[in-house]
Amino acid sequence: MKLIDLTHPLTDGQPAFPGDPVPRIRPFATLAENGYNLTRFAMGSHQGTHLDAPFHFLRDGGTVDRIPLERLYGPATLVDLAPGGALGKGAVITPGMLQLHASAFEPGARVLLRTGWHEQFGSPAFFDGYPSLTIEAARWIAARKIGLLGMDMPSPAADPAEAHQALLGADVLLLEAVANLAALPRRFTLAAFPLKLEGRDGPPVRAVAILDEPS
Amino acid sequence: MKLIDLTHPLTDGQPAFPGDPVPRIRPFATLAENGYNLTRFAMGSHQGTHLDAPFHFLRDGGTVDRIPLERLYGPATLVDLAPGGALGKGAVITPGMLQLHASAFEPGARVLLRTGWHEQFGSPAFFDGYPSLTIEAARWIAARKIGLLGMDMPSPAADPAEAHQALLGADVLLLEAVANLAALPRRFTLAAFPLKLEGRDGPPVRAVAILDEPS
Repeated sequence: MKLIDLTHPLTDGQPAFPGDPVPRIRPFATLAENGYNLTRFAMGSHQGTHLDAPFHFLRDGGTVDRIPLERLYGPATLVDLAPGGALGKGAVITPGMLQLHASAFEPGARVLLRTGWHEQFGSPAFFDGYPSLTIEAARWIAARKIGLLGMDMPSPAADPAEAHQALLGADVLLLEAVANLAALPRRFTLAAFPLKLEGRDGPPVRAVAILDEPS
Repeated sequence: MKLIDLTHPLTDGQPAFPGDPVPRIRPFATLAENGYNLTRFAMGSHQGTHLDAPFHFLRDGGTVDRIPLERLYGPATLVDLAPGGALGKGAVITPGMLQLHASAFEPGARVLLRTGWHEQFGSPAFFDGYPSLTIEAARWIAARKIGLLGMDMPSPAADPAEAHQALLGADVLLLEAVANLAALPRRFTLAAFPLKLEGRDGPPVRAVAILDEPS
């Protein structure tokens, strides 16, 4: 068995999605003064590698603490949209590009899209011109009723509202700003258990890929 | 397969360990005003169900982002110190009580202690008189070099410093304030992947037990 961390580190002051709170991660107690180290951290619910619950964009949408854990653990498929490379700034992802990988988009499936954009993480450039699903591509995925869509971009689309509504409205959970997708084989087990913020729209996740390897 | 959530919910204003920051979990953007729901949350690194990295009590101790994921995922054993009941306020856990379960404490093992104290979670009473390892019991565990010690109490001992130093000093990771231990069989797979706070002492965790069940 081999584990691959699919999570970006959370650091004090790292860039947030425009309009979101800037993360603060600061010592609250120290060994020298208090006899132990303790941290106070504050951030938005969509900082770093994180999960979108339906309540993020839907009035009556499910909240993150209510998502059945079974949806967040199990077989997953990598769909690599730029093998060996990366989609460029402003790239669009069309239904035709997804159609080449149609067999991955089964009802209930967990699908992670790799564009190579994760290399911008930690810079404001991560949020500027990330590869974007067209609304037709978002609807193409929603119609297939997959269970979870992961991606290395911070959001599925440059114009987030309509794409989020289409996907979350079809009960497709979104796992955003995933790291290290280049390290993955096509098939793996995903664990993406979110922080248990009661009644809220989403939280950071420690996402991990579990690979069975011959020992 | 069946998943059991071992995690307490994180809620605004819930009691914290005395001296720790009180958690704040508040709407930051709302559907009505912004077109989406977003939360700002702030808390201490040892709020709710959480992991202690060695750096919590050791100057040169490992930080949470550096813990190999393999230590946080795999076979685990429940040690029930109060089958069908609960240890009372002020109870002490002695080496003799652990000796009855000595076979669970193999080098590298993941061991979760159930005392029944988790029922106090969410009340200030959770932090008042929780069952406590004696320093001899903490040293008994440390000497066995297990890899991870979980528990339903907020801390391994009423006098935390010496017990933490003994356990973290022997590289025994601590998983504290675990929920739902009564739902577990003796053997299960534990996943306890922590929030990836870079360079820090510990963070909340979404801890999950994975059971293989005949389908």
